[in-house]
Amino acid sequence: MMDSTIVENEARKIKVAVLGATGYTGEEAIRLLLNHPRVEIARLFSLEFVGEKVCEAFPRFSKKLDVVIEEFRAESDLKDCEAVMACLPHRVSMRLVAPLVERGITVIDLSADFRFADPQTYSAAYGVEHQYAALLEQAVYGLPELNRDKLRGCKLVAVPGCYPTSAILGAAALLKNRLVRPSGIVIDSKSGVSGAGRAPSSRCHFPECNESIFPYSIGEHRHQPEIEEQFSELYGEKVKVTFAPHLVPMNRGILSTIYLDPRGDVRLDRVRAAYEEMYGDEPFVTLLPQGRFPRTADVAGTNSCHIGITGTREGKIVVASAIDNLVKGASGQAVQCLNVVYGFDETDGLTRV
Amino acid sequence: MMDSTIVENEARKIKVAVLGATGYTGEEAIRLLLNHPRVEIARLFSLEFVGEKVCEAFPRFSKKLDVVIEEFRAESDLKDCEAVMACLPHRVSMRLVAPLVERGITVIDLSADFRFADPQTYSAAYGVEHQYAALLEQAVYGLPELNRDKLRGCKLVAVPGCYPTSAILGAAALLKNRLVRPSGIVIDSKSGVSGAGRAPSSRCHFPECNESIFPYSIGEHRHQPEIEEQFSELYGEKVKVTFAPHLVPMNRGILSTIYLDPRGDVRLDRVRAAYEEMYGDEPFVTLLPQGRFPRTADVAGTNSCHIGITGTREGKIVVASAIDNLVKGASGQAVQCLNVVYGFDETDGLTRV
Amino acid sequence: MMDSTIVENEARKIKVAVLGATGYTGEEAIRLLLNHPRVEIARLFSLEFVGEKVCEAFPRFSKKLDVVIEEFRAESDLKDCEAVMACLPHRVSMRLVAPLVERGITVIDLSADFRFADPQTYSAAYGVEHQYAALLEQAVYGLPELNRDKLRGCKLVAVPGCYPTSAILGAAALLKNRLVRPSGIVIDSKSGVSGAGRAPSSRCHFPECNESIFPYSIGEHRHQPEIEEQFSELYGEKVKVTFAPHLVPMNRGILSTIYLDPRGDVRLDRVRAAYEEMYGDEPFVTLLPQGRFPRTADVAGTNSCHIGITGTREGKIVVASAIDNLVKGASGQAVQCLNVVYGFDETDGLTRV
Amino acid sequence: MMDSTIVENEARKIKVAVLGATGYTGEEAIRLLLNHPRVEIARLFSLEFVGEKVCEAFPRFSKKLDVVIEEFRAESDLKDCEAVMACLPHRVSMRLVAPLVERGITVIDLSADFRFADPQTYSAAYGVEHQYAALLEQAVYGLPELNRDKLRGCKLVAVPGCYPTSAILGAAALLKNRLVRPSGIVIDSKSGVSGAGRAPSSRCHFPECNESIFPYSIGEHRHQPEIEEQFSELYGEKVKVTFAPHLVPMNRGILSTIYLDPRGDVRLDRVRAAYEEMYGDEPFVTLLPQGRFPRTADVAGTNSCHIGITGTREGKIVVASAIDNLVKGASGQAVQCLNVVYGFDETDGLTRV
Repeated sequence: MMDSTIVENEARKIKVAVLGATGYTGEEAIRLLLNHPRVEIARLFSLEFVGEKVCEAFPRFSKKLDVVIEEFRAESDLKDCEAVMACLPHRVSMRLVAPLVERGITVIDLSADFRFADPQTYSAAYGVEHQYAALLEQAVYGLPELNRDKLRGCKLVAVPGCYPTSAILGAAALLKNRLVRPSGIVIDSKSGVSGAGRAPSSRCHFPECNESIFPYSIGEHRHQPEIEEQFSELYGEKVKVTFAPHLVPMNRGILSTIYLDPRGDVRLDRVRAAYEEMYGDEPFVTLLPQGRFPRTADVAGTNSCHIGITGTREGKIVVASAIDNLVKGASGQAVQCLNVVYGFDETDGLTRV
Repeated sequence: MMDSTIVENEARKIKVAVLGATGYTGEEAIRLLLNHPRVEIARLFSLEFVGEKVCEAFPRFSKKLDVVIEEFRAESDLKDCEAVMACLPHRVSMRLVAPLVERGITVIDLSADFRFADPQTYSAAYGVEHQYAALLEQAVYGLPELNRDKLRGCKLVAVPGCYPTSAILGAAALLKNRLVRPSGIVIDSKSGVSGAGRAPSSRCHFPECNESIFPYSIGEHRHQPEIEEQFSELYGEKVKVTFAPHLVPMNRGILSTIYLDPRGDVRLDRVRAAYEEMYGDEPFVTLLPQGRFPRTADVAGTNSCHIGITGTREGKIVVASAIDNLVKGASGQAVQCLNVVYGFDETDGLTRV
Repeated sequence: MMDSTIVENEARKIKVAVLGATGYTGEEAIRLLLNHPRVEIARLFSLEFVGEKVCEAFPRFSKKLDVVIEEFRAESDLKDCEAVMACLPHRVSMRLVAPLVERGITVIDLSADFRFADPQTYSAAYGVEHQYAALLEQAVYGLPELNRDKLRGCKLVAVPGCYPTSAILGAAALLKNRLVRPSGIVIDSKSGVSGAGRAPSSRCHFPECNESIFPYSIGEHRHQPEIEEQFSELYGEKVKVTFAPHLVPMNRGILSTIYLDPRGDVRLDRVRAAYEEMYGDEPFVTLLPQGRFPRTADVAGTNSCHIGITGTREGKIVVASAIDNLVKGASGQAVQCLNVVYGFDETDGLTRV
Repeated sequence: MMDSTIVENEARKIKVAVLGATGYTGEEAIRLLLNHPRVEIARLFSLEFVGEKVCEAFPRFSKKLDVVIEEFRAESDLKDCEAVMACLPHRVSMRLVAPLVERGITVIDLSADFRFADPQTYSAAYGVEHQYAALLEQAVYGLPELNRDKLRGCKLVAVPGCYPTSAILGAAALLKNRLVRPSGIVIDSKSGVSGAGRAPSSRCHFPECNESIFPYSIGEHRHQPEIEEQFSELYGEKVKVTFAPHLVPMNRGILSTIYLDPRGDVRLDRVRAAYEEMYGDEPFVTLLPQGRFPRTADVAGTNSCHIGITGTREGKIVVASAIDNLVKGASGQAVQCLNVVYGFDETDGLTRV
């Protein structure tokens, strides 16, 4: 077994369970945790492939992991796991993880269920009542670059959406320093197809989305209120955005191109300084040199976010922000949060280049 | 042979030469003209594959066209061709086609050399002096949907750039009817890789651009002043735009997502009516039903432009406009212009679905 | 409307119905027939999009065709159509088209239902009884390059499968002239994903098949007995093959690489002469010059088949044969058959380059 | 820095230099070695990006590695590096690494220069004289699954070619146990485009190879004699193969489909047993369950090889073998060899899933 040697001289490993282990974010969580020096993947739950070893269901894990996939029924199924990665659809997630939180298990939740401070915002965006609104208060929005302190020791992490992660990391320095106006912000995002999940659909059928690009849900996407809530928090007043997601014929990656209006006569060097200050010590966020823009290929498979900025003659600030939607946009960020929660090295399990 | 039969009972065919026959737009021009009932492809010129039959250089044309590729030296090489498709790089084009225009040959020029009214704008954008500024006056900007009348019988057509075609067709109805404000317009464009031409480069090397999306030349692309000139013309006053092109891992297609601010309290039905009025009778432009957005796959290989529009809660108008960059964005539009110039049916040679 | 002008000075148009109009082969049949000078697309049938105009269901047909999609119930639905393109799944096809054939309607059937001479071979391959075995005698295997004479005036055409078309056109000259041994033949075929049809599936979900190649159904694919039957017919004795299909991350195209053992001391020039003789006058089949091999991209969207041949030092003959699976491998070949049946020019509707 | 923590409690790290650090195999070597617990990437050499930090040349390495790229002139440039990964073109490699070997530096050579036992075979395949034939004797063919014992402590490793790795791992169990006949073997290989290296070319220009598959160099590829030498070694007598490589529109991965004739009445269970015996304890080679075939996507980014086998009715054995051409087919295998040479854990640096 691959990891046996790595483990030897380490303090202690925590046992982690993955709920929703066979979706794309679940599979990615397993891939990352397999190389995590402080984590043992103890249990895997799903409604598919139940009873099969994970290496049979996913040949990628051959000779690396042979945990059997189980159907999750109750907290007791977790046995001695102290943390859970919940890679479940919204609504399903809250129902399953709420009892776990109450029992003191650390939950890193990748769904949208605990991302909003206000249950009304959630209901408006997702069209369902929030049944565990009381938990929203203790949930921390899991963007370590912004909320590192709050994450330490917390028991319920709401991992941000993929589009929001790219947008927030791309614009945070401008918003927090109020270098831009709070209105008229345009976010044009382009996502690889894995963002749509593993369930086959007409839209993601290969011959339908290959050799094509198209927008969808313009002005109606559920990630828009999430972006607006975080932007408003950063800015200190209500911020509205125009958000247009697009599907791109590639497996992984999100590029968000963000158009903003500078406040007053803010200059580009001031803008760059704000980014340098915010991200200089961050292990996963890089501001590219002036004149360069990010390519999603450069962050594919990694937990990194690459950012390029420019100012245009007609007076806009344009930011391009690239992440891997399944890593920094989902499971990698979840692992990063786990690391912060437990006080591990923040890059543990995330050293893949 | 494919074309012999089709020809029979037709009035007359004009002999056409293609300059720059072996680049992507040249090859596409041949593909389209091969099925044009009123055109005979009489001569092909290039600096590559000289002396070879076009069907040897491009197996696609096997058993369909066996014209020999020649090097172009002087007007006399054209023999009895009465029209020329010039698929050449800017600057090379003006030098070669200016003498042809002076000799009365009809030139459909796909380069940027005759697209601007003012030679200064050209110089500023392309970094070279315009050596045939006198010809600019007689050149017509070859967007038939806007300039059909001027095109009839004209001798020098400047076929629009690919990005400008998608942007102008996408926004014309809004600009001409002054339904939007002339500032703050954002054009986020996504292009397939054939837009970069046939010459190999590091950027377009398969493993470099496959599975990746990235912006380039934000605020500095040569198509921006072209877009601004046409937008200004339509609006009746100076319009500036923010233009960000992106490279997408697909062969063909451009999608431009355009963000505009409505003037006053313009409503969406008024907006849609403006599009219906402008494009209702156009054979190549379709306004999609409310709630639908275009996919580049649906226009690939065709001369069509598909447009989707929506209004957002925060008050933007968002337009998505899709074309095939090599057809409506280049050689197809060139054929359409040729048809208008000669009074042929405007869809001749452009019936590919 | 696009086609109105083309039609004018033509003899007569036949009315054609497409059954299964919304699958990939149905859609492709419509695309081709739209440019057919002797065909009017009169009726479209499907179980999906019933009641919608075809241009609503498929924006590609906007401003080009607005026939309404109907559900097919009985022969009378065909009204005055004299020919039918049946783009249906096997088994469904025989049930629907058998009554049409009996009523004298010309059926071009793209399913497997009438491809085998012997109903037992069909049952063994497709796992169902043949319910209209009597019709098999009058069905002609629709490969015009081999069966042109039999096709003229015939009422039931069984259009070959996509893999068989590429394999048979690739090897026919060798088999018919008995230049190779009838055993040990290996056919390694690579297909684009549209070959799997329009129904979403896990295997053809974009992130699953993109950036991957894999074999499937080795030794068990239904096209193997079809290939063997035709190979045997050409050779004049029983021929067995090893057939391994692979899925390739592209939309269209099949490449079959065929490995054969020459009989006695057959030399390469003799082999090439056999191909030249067989295909010299064929409008759709090209033997590439010695040393060149076909690329599927060169035949994409066309009804062409490109073939390259070589002999190797260790004594094999290797043939590579490329087609577009939806055109020469399905709907294009169907149109070609229709042309032969009706005595139209064989390239009518198939001039797309 | 990412790796600082991991290092702490480790015995000793060796300093390694990468020659040819900016090609695809060089970059991949860096990616893998960055996560190697026993290696420090001490020096990087190339003719490109000289003087730049590797993280500037390749943004992927931002915040992970800032070694400066140097031009290699003499052994002394290596300073205290004790091992070298040579990721150079053939012929260049022998000239540069021969002096290093003589000086006692461990060389893991990824070129073809030391793969053949006989310098004549090399000359015949690569068209150049071998200038360091004396070194061939001490070079070990770096396929650990076959040559593990010889690799321990050796000073010059010749890492196998990508196609040969997939073919040899796919067929070794059959050849070594003489379960197949030594003639008539067909290897149909399909490779992603990164196999062609980083230099732009017309063949690998995105719009040329995207949406296409084609064979090349059939019967003439340089990897054929390499495969034949290793097959012969395994079989114990001269083996000839027919080898046809194909280019597939994906970045990474090789699938080799191998067709062989069983000797006598060998049965499939005997065949499977031979594979189980050979690979049961191998950390990187997996025999898939009966009825399953490998997908290159499942090994992408990993050092794994997945193998599927079947027997067909007409009596062939068909093996499909999948690797990542840049990992198990090049730099990953090089790292695996380094691990064996130095007695490290064989999976060090290769735990990426």
